[in-house]
Formats: sequence, C-alpha cells, structure tokens
Amino acid sequence: MNKDGTTAVDTFSVPAFDLNDYLAVQRSKIDSALLTSIQRLCPSDHMQPAVMHAVTAGGKRLRPVLCLASCSAVGGNETQAMPAACALEMIHTYSLIHDDLPALDNDDLRRGQPTCHVRFGEATAILAGDALLTMAFEVMSEAALQADGQLLPAWTAVMAAISRAAGCRGMIEGQARDLAFEGVKIGRDDLAALHRLKTGALIQAATRSGALLGGGSAQQVTQLAEYADCIGLAFQVVDDLLNVKGDPAVMGKAVGSDQARQKNTYPALLGLSGAEAYARALVEQGLQALSIFDNKADPLRAIAGYIIDRDH
Amino acid sequence: MNKDGTTAVDTFSVPAFDLNDYLAVQRSKIDSALLTSIQRLCPSDHMQPAVMHAVTAGGKRLRPVLCLASCSAVGGNETQAMPAACALEMIHTYSLIHDDLPALDNDDLRRGQPTCHVRFGEATAILAGDALLTMAFEVMSEAALQADGQLLPAWTAVMAAISRAAGCRGMIEGQARDLAFEGVKIGRDDLAALHRLKTGALIQAATRSGALLGGGSAQQVTQLAEYADCIGLAFQVVDDLLNVKGDPAVMGKAVGSDQARQKNTYPALLGLSGAEAYARALVEQGLQALSIFDNKADPLRAIAGYIIDRDH
Repeated sequence: MNKDGTTAVDTFSVPAFDLNDYLAVQRSKIDSALLTSIQRLCPSDHMQPAVMHAVTAGGKRLRPVLCLASCSAVGGNETQAMPAACALEMIHTYSLIHDDLPALDNDDLRRGQPTCHVRFGEATAILAGDALLTMAFEVMSEAALQADGQLLPAWTAVMAAISRAAGCRGMIEGQARDLAFEGVKIGRDDLAALHRLKTGALIQAATRSGALLGGGSAQQVTQLAEYADCIGLAFQVVDDLLNVKGDPAVMGKAVGSDQARQKNTYPALLGLSGAEAYARALVEQGLQALSIFDNKADPLRAIAGYIIDRDH
Repeated sequence: MNKDGTTAVDTFSVPAFDLNDYLAVQRSKIDSALLTSIQRLCPSDHMQPAVMHAVTAGGKRLRPVLCLASCSAVGGNETQAMPAACALEMIHTYSLIHDDLPALDNDDLRRGQPTCHVRFGEATAILAGDALLTMAFEVMSEAALQADGQLLPAWTAVMAAISRAAGCRGMIEGQARDLAFEGVKIGRDDLAALHRLKTGALIQAATRSGALLGGGSAQQVTQLAEYADCIGLAFQVVDDLLNVKGDPAVMGKAVGSDQARQKNTYPALLGLSGAEAYARALVEQGLQALSIFDNKADPLRAIAGYIIDRDH
C-alpha cells in the first residue's frame, strides 16, 4: 500500500502502457533464448546457418510474446515459460520455411530477405524446417527434464497442446486446406475454419502454454484461449487488409499478391470496410475475454490493439 | 515351478526361439496401434491418405520392435511402451518421405511402391512428413498425459531422448552430412559417424525408450544402448551389402544404385568379405552387451542374428 492509499499494483497500471518498449524488451529476451537454444541443439555447420537465417529474419515473435504475457497474466514467472515460447517460434518458423518451398507457395522473399531455399537450396531448407520442428520438442522436453517435478504435469499438457496445434488437427490441416482451396471460392465459415487451423491453433497454444506453466486456473486458461481465438482471427483479417493496402517498403514483401493468386481473403468476402469492422469486433471480443484479469493482463490488452493498428 | 523342477521361465526359454513368429505377432500389434493413432490424430481426407500410404508401405518396424523388446527385456509391460514404439516408426517414416523427395534422394520407389511424392505430389508429401514428425510427439505427450503420474519422469526422458536422436545432434545431422559427402570419398571413421547419426541414434533411442518405460535400471539402459549401437551399425553394413548382392525382387528396389551414385559404403571401403566380417563382429559385440540380461532378452538376441541374415 502506498502513502496515498493506492496499492503498488494500482500505480503500475497506467492507462498509457508503452507497448513498443514492452515488445522491445520481450523480443530481446526471446531472441537471446532462441539463439542460445539453437546454438546448443543445432551445433553443426551443416544445419545451423540455414536454421539461423530463417529464425533471425526479423519476425514479430507474436507467439512467444503471447506465451510469456499469458504466463505473467496468471501471476506466473515468465522464465518458466521461455522454453515453450522458443518452441512456438521454432514451429512457426519451420512452417514458414516449408510453406515458402517451390512445391508449396514458391516464395522467394520473406520479411524482405531471400527465403531459406533461395539462400541454401531446397534440400537444406526442407531439413532446416524439419530441424526446427524437432528442436521445438527437444527444447521443451529438456526443460521438463530439468524442471521441478511439480511442473511435469504442466509441461506434459503444454507439449500435448503445442503438438496438437501444430499437427493434423491444427496447422498442418490448415496448410492442406489452403492448398486444396487454391482457386476455389469458399464462404466465410470455411475461411474462418481455415485460419483457425492454419494460424489460430498455434496462437491459442501460445496463451495456453504460458497460462499452464504460470500455474493458471482452468478458467484463466479458457479465457486466454478465447482471447487468442479472437485476436488470432483478427490478425489474419488484418494480414489480408495489409496485402491490399499495405506499404511494400514497410511490409518487406509485395502487396496485391493475394488478389493475383485469387486467394480467399476477408476483403474479397466482406469488402475493405466490412473486413475492417470485423477485425475491430474480434478485438473487442478478445478484450472482453480478459475482463476477469487484473492489470497483469495489460500487455495482452495492448497487443490486441496492436493487432489492428500494425502496418506490417 | 513345474513338476519336473524347471521354472515356467526356463521352459519358455527354448534355444530355438522362433523369430518369425515373434516378429509377426509384434508387427501386427504395432501396425494396429499405429493405424489407430493415425486415424485419431490425422482424421482428415486431406492428409490421412498420404500419411497412411507411407506408413503401410510394408516396413520392417525395426525401431518399434526394438523398443517393445527392450521394455520386456527389463521386465516391463510392453503396453506402456507402445506409444513410444509408434512415435519411433512415425519419425522413421517421415524421414523416408522427406529423404525420397526430388530435392534430396529423388527416389520414385520405396519398398516396391511409388514414393509419397510420386503418388500424392510434392506439396502433400512434404506436409505428410511434417505431419508424422508432429504426430510422434502428439502420441507421446498424450500417452504421458494419460499415464500414471509415476511414469511422467520416464515419459519426459523418452521424449528428450527421441527428439534429440531425431534432431540436429542425430538423424538430421546425418542427413545433412550425407548430402554434404555426396561424391566425396570419406574414411571409415567418418562413415561410421555418419551412420551413427543418420540411423544409429534413433535405433538407440528405441531401446532406451523401451527400457525407460519398462522401469529398467541405469545399467540396463546403458547396456541396451551399447547393443543398439552395434546392431544399428551392423544393419547399415548389411544394407550396403544387400545393395551390392541382394535380389531386387525380394528387396523391392533396384540394387547397385549405391555404386552408380558413388556413395560411400562399407563394401567399397572394406571389400565384400571385409564388410561381412565387420557386420558379424558388430553383432557379436551387440550380443555381448546383452550378457547381463536373462532370457527375457532372447528376442533382442534373435533380432541381432536377423540383422545379419536378412535378405531385404
């Protein structure tokens, strides 16, 4: 309790939460943990350069940031969730490497840099993706081995949640549908289902892992999953919008490619203003899901706003 | 104790252990568990056919058989090790799918059947490999979630061992060296190191997982790892020999391809009879490592013999 009768927590809960500072600090911690893990788990000259190239190409680290912020939101110690945060980014990066391959999206540029297969060849890119997917489970199972025995049930649940989200009932099924739907016009429900699988499941696994490792209650885990579902979908709607009206210099990739490929997008389905309104409604719903949390969830609230307002 | 003074165990320990019967029973159990897992974890029409095609193409199931046999050798209940056995075969199969891709070995036939990318296209084959690798950790983490809490430390150690063996300090590094050494003449030590990484690590993870889940002692785990190291290398030597003098009809693939590709092989390094003698010495050493075990390790002893005498 402070002299003026407010608690320290109240004082900290400034409305003007500085998200940029927060993200810079979190990303720096995450990058440091990621690079240390890769150096240790992928020591050889044959694979490390390709893996590092993909991981250091400048991602937003959305999934690890959400994982750590969810751990804090339930009152946990973020250090305990860091290996899960790294694993989530490894899985996300592997999915980008394989997605960019000539047999899939055949993309030459990602975040303004040559994609992994352009720089290192297809064989090494396939293996680098495999390496990062495997490494995700190495980093988590080793953390579980070294953790306090009391954390073992949480680690087991985290590995089950992340593997499920990344697998054929999650991200891979989303990828497969994306391929199957190429050039096929689909409706709003199918598009939402596609995104929930392709990106939403892993974003949800991020908040779930953080909450589980932070010792969150079942209700807290559920509310964070609802939040993640909303902002994950909103993120995708905004991605579609940026592809129509973004600045290529800021985005690090060409705009207008979705339309050229006749991809199913929210702007195509709902119009520009309809898609914008939908993204805002989703973010509102996501914030609503956080209402049971105190100001320890402020970073999550600020991230919801950032999802809408980002320019890349 | 039986009427004639022998124990039931002694009676069972017939010198003429019928390996064919044993393998048929074990493979049938493994196949059933594998298919059930895939149907559950990969339910969709987009991915299941490609995954099933690869898994049911008629492999020897060496890794799962070794896992279950190691569990039994330490006196454990094989049912507890079955999810690890399935995971090992999933990882082995994923590695074959990706290895066969045009950017890697570009193989059209595997076990006498069209390879995954020939049958389903490259994009689906890449995803099917990713799916199987992810599913391996789904099947293990779900088994751990449902297991008795006392088994959690063993499951954590198993996931750490299997992910390490499959990753950049194991199988993937082996693959990368295989690519790097193409057309480069290497010596005996480098060739052994390559095989230990590319196939040996996962075979060793198989005996380790089975022993850990069966409640084996540290000494038992170590001896089984030594056994696996020896027979894993012997398996590779015999593979090289079969590529020179095998029967293509029995093998389900062309022979002589190693020589045509100027691959580094044991027959090329040691000559045919030198390679045969080396394989026999390795199997002898593997059997020696089993000397601390009673007749519950007879299947492992018989498998060591089979490694040498197989025709495909």
